Amino acid sequence: MPSIFSKIVTGEIPCHKVAENENYLAFLDINPLAEGHTLVIPKKEIDYIFDLDDETLSGLMLFSKKVAQAIEKTISCERIGIAVIGLEVPHAHIHLSPINSIGDINFAKAKLPTDHARFAEIAAAIRANF
Amino acid sequence: MPSIFSKIVTGEIPCHKVAENENYLAFLDINPLAEGHTLVIPKKEIDYIFDLDDETLSGLMLFSKKVAQAIEKTISCERIGIAVIGLEVPHAHIHLSPINSIGDINFAKAKLPTDHARFAEIAAAIRANF
Repeated sequence: MPSIFSKIVTGEIPCHKVAENENYLAFLDINPLAEGHTLVIPKKEIDYIFDLDDETLSGLMLFSKKVAQAIEKTISCERIGIAVIGLEVPHAHIHLSPINSIGDINFAKAKLPTDHARFAEIAAAIRANF
Repeated sequence: MPSIFSKIVTGEIPCHKVAENENYLAFLDINPLAEGHTLVIPKKEIDYIFDLDDETLSGLMLFSKKVAQAIEKTISCERIGIAVIGLEVPHAHIHLSPINSIGDINFAKAKLPTDHARFAEIAAAIRANF
């Protein structure tokens, strides 16, 4: 069965898209640590990030850099933090989240509410900066 | 003034080295989230990871993949998590840390004690698997 992220890639499940190219997709996390918290995935469904072949892995990182630069232009923050946990959805994904302090990357903390109207605004603003 | 990590690169400050090549260095974090928690840096001193040029950034990620595979062979865990916060030391660094649950990447939590004898054993074991 395809992962929830593969269903997002095919459009079967909607997302707040931030950026896309032939091989990668970026969209807002709907349980965000901060406004602008984005997931970046390879379209190819592979569970563990370190099982990606070198070309796909380096391409994922370079695509993430461009996405991070667009988030930074959109959301006021010190910088964009990176996290890869990968124990929830079996499809490699990089979390990019605006941070202002060292404790801001913490998946144990309470998430922001899922507010699709606000997510749509944020995604449009990041897309415009990509 | 060179960063503490540049001083580790030159050997002015010691480290528990895990892996090294011409452009990158990996060594144990001395305030680890878990046994085997490793920092991977470009030898070139640049503060913010997304300011690295594309070649250095993708090389850093591919070197980190090899380091992560060596950590996994050494430390029992579900997988290796990735984090980049970057608000502490102004020299880009990737945290690679063994994880077993989603809350394991959390820099707000208490760190393991700094035990240089144990660190030396762990670093040697990871080096042997690199």
